[in-house]
Amino acid sequence: MALQRPKGTQDHLPDGSPKLRLDISARAFRYVTDTAAQVLERAGAAFIETPMFEEAELVKRGVGGSTDIVRKEMFMVYYFGDHGGYVLRPEGTAGLVRAYLENGLKQLPAPFKLWTHGPMFRAERQQRGRLRQFHQVDYEVLGSADPLVDAEAIWLMVQVVQALGLKGVEVKLGSIGDPEDRETYNAYLRGLFGAHVERLSDDSKDRLERNPMRILDSKSQEDQELIAELSVRPMLDFLGAEAEAHFAAVRGFLDAWNVAYTVDPSIVRGLDYYRRTAWELHHAHIGAKSALGGGGRYDGLAKELGGSDTPGIGWAFGVERILIAMEEEGLSLPAAPQPQLYVAALDAGHVPMAAQVALELRSDFWADFGYKAQKPGNAFREGERRGAAYVALIGSDEAAAGTVALKNMSTGEQQSVKVADLAAVLGASALSSRS
Amino acid sequence: MALQRPKGTQDHLPDGSPKLRLDISARAFRYVTDTAAQVLERAGAAFIETPMFEEAELVKRGVGGSTDIVRKEMFMVYYFGDHGGYVLRPEGTAGLVRAYLENGLKQLPAPFKLWTHGPMFRAERQQRGRLRQFHQVDYEVLGSADPLVDAEAIWLMVQVVQALGLKGVEVKLGSIGDPEDRETYNAYLRGLFGAHVERLSDDSKDRLERNPMRILDSKSQEDQELIAELSVRPMLDFLGAEAEAHFAAVRGFLDAWNVAYTVDPSIVRGLDYYRRTAWELHHAHIGAKSALGGGGRYDGLAKELGGSDTPGIGWAFGVERILIAMEEEGLSLPAAPQPQLYVAALDAGHVPMAAQVALELRSDFWADFGYKAQKPGNAFREGERRGAAYVALIGSDEAAAGTVALKNMSTGEQQSVKVADLAAVLGASALSSRS
Repeated sequence: MALQRPKGTQDHLPDGSPKLRLDISARAFRYVTDTAAQVLERAGAAFIETPMFEEAELVKRGVGGSTDIVRKEMFMVYYFGDHGGYVLRPEGTAGLVRAYLENGLKQLPAPFKLWTHGPMFRAERQQRGRLRQFHQVDYEVLGSADPLVDAEAIWLMVQVVQALGLKGVEVKLGSIGDPEDRETYNAYLRGLFGAHVERLSDDSKDRLERNPMRILDSKSQEDQELIAELSVRPMLDFLGAEAEAHFAAVRGFLDAWNVAYTVDPSIVRGLDYYRRTAWELHHAHIGAKSALGGGGRYDGLAKELGGSDTPGIGWAFGVERILIAMEEEGLSLPAAPQPQLYVAALDAGHVPMAAQVALELRSDFWADFGYKAQKPGNAFREGERRGAAYVALIGSDEAAAGTVALKNMSTGEQQSVKVADLAAVLGASALSSRS
Repeated sequence: MALQRPKGTQDHLPDGSPKLRLDISARAFRYVTDTAAQVLERAGAAFIETPMFEEAELVKRGVGGSTDIVRKEMFMVYYFGDHGGYVLRPEGTAGLVRAYLENGLKQLPAPFKLWTHGPMFRAERQQRGRLRQFHQVDYEVLGSADPLVDAEAIWLMVQVVQALGLKGVEVKLGSIGDPEDRETYNAYLRGLFGAHVERLSDDSKDRLERNPMRILDSKSQEDQELIAELSVRPMLDFLGAEAEAHFAAVRGFLDAWNVAYTVDPSIVRGLDYYRRTAWELHHAHIGAKSALGGGGRYDGLAKELGGSDTPGIGWAFGVERILIAMEEEGLSLPAAPQPQLYVAALDAGHVPMAAQVALELRSDFWADFGYKAQKPGNAFREGERRGAAYVALIGSDEAAAGTVALKNMSTGEQQSVKVADLAAVLGASALSSRS
């Protein structure tokens, strides 16, 4: 039997693992989510978790039935004796909006800021940075259409990646207008592409009727050549007065707060419930096609999901992509907390005492022990391997006296210390190394 | 469309949510896993994460093809264009042992202690405390058959629940011996039940040949009546000398460390790779049949999964069950950190300044702002609702002077503070409230 994880998944491993990289380091994942927690919760965002799977219908409505995600990349979930019609969640927004509505969070004062992090699932073809189980940090605000909420969301996304130390990030900002602006734009596109139907890909022939804007998103080379040739005007040229004012207000806040961004007229969102502000977060080292994440306003989503009309906006970034970008920038994690004590017995008969000494200190300190008797040299080497501040040895003399032979691993100094005084010595050392 | 989460799943919600309970509180889940992290990492355990789904074959071998979990409760995962033969993980051990072996962690010094937490999935019939997506904290030690490792594992499990404040927990400890002891025991059971085949349930007739010990685990009433009638001797009476010595050593450590437990001869594990130590953690308020969790030694598992022979032991508890037990004991979470500042503008023109004041403080403080202009009374009420230490008001006078009108929400004192001095005021207040 092959002992392998499923294709397109990764284990998150501890420090010291062979072939460790940031994007498979358990400590790196925790660093990203802890940093996001600090930045987002200081801004008043509430942490929420939703299930790993949802009703297929929810995801279809939330992500769009015509998207590749729904048409080709869904992981379906079945169980014996029933067919739930469930799918593993491919993104977080649909579930979060569902949870907001289902749990009556709309009764709380709006805008309501929330965030989550966790695994997402897409059965994509395997390639670098494209995992089948990947992880996102996800921020959403429900209950306000105010452009200040949009600007704050973008500011927070930038704050999180800056707090992680990333330098080479770029916000590409656009607006996709209001539904009536998109109708105007779609009419323009139908006229434009309609004269060249024979050159469109089959998928785009289909889109021409249903949603011409999605042609601009096409991955087909023939479509992209035609788009370039026709010098298609961007959605941004078609914004109505209200969407235009909203976009100007968002930019005004970002300018006032010194958030760097470039206006990117090519940003489109194919789904009906998206409105106005849309953006992507790019990283120089990941390549133009691979955004770290993106966000947008989706005022029509709650209603589409069967809830009451609720404006919303949100963003998500891929944790693996962030970690790959950090690795490319040569960033490393903050140092792990230093293990404080490693206790070794010099003979088998004193292993239980070594264990007990360590156990009793663990209420306040990182303290571990050797399960077998060790010679002093081996014990010091083991303490060094673990990065322990102190190594304590216990033999017959120490056991009889109720002491340990304590070595300070940075100064090399050794002294006999009563077991009852160990906590005080470790505590004093922790304080002095902090100052 | 029904806006509902899948049957048997729960959302984890923020403080202030309607109908909040501990077992659906996002902060409670974080409290349990943070507490587990502190206790387990001080003992040198490394945090690892494995994917939500694994190959069905791995789970079948890891959990046992004849168990209800594999036969009736698996969530299968499919995707278009392929059939992965994947299942959502019903428990953590198989994946963790797979990850340990696949990632070469066996090269690191043994014993290797690791832990994880996260969702597990079983398509059980819905009832209280039985969720289809539930959450576990999971601790495993690989690479040592030493009874000291067993005792430390039990000690750590008890430490975690005690650190959470739980009082009414009970460790029920047993041993299922070595494989040759189980052969002797199975021969005894075959003889005993063989004389009453006609009274066994159909499932147990099957078990009589393949694995008579599993009859003792049977949920069928007829089987349980027969077991009581026959006064079946427990596995514990059949331990060989080595397993007996191991069990005595484990108990010796627990006695020395004052870990309370009761020996429970009825504890059995039906799977071949389980060895020796096995235990359950019970809680008075959850009822006898509903353990909070359990653990055991599984020296045969790594080989069963296709890896090299590696002794192992581990435990897991259900986070939801722990939280239900905490609620039953009347325990509550530690207070949430106090929000420090709420900034409100007295007129719409000063909302951007209110936002900017809050944003700039967020690098060190919890600081939020109102998206709309508010009257002072409304602003104070909003600050109070959030539990903020201070509320700052900004109107024309303040904007002109570069100040805010700052109200200390606990003393009621109001003063005019320069925007540039706000961080110092908040910082001094945070320090004094800590001492």
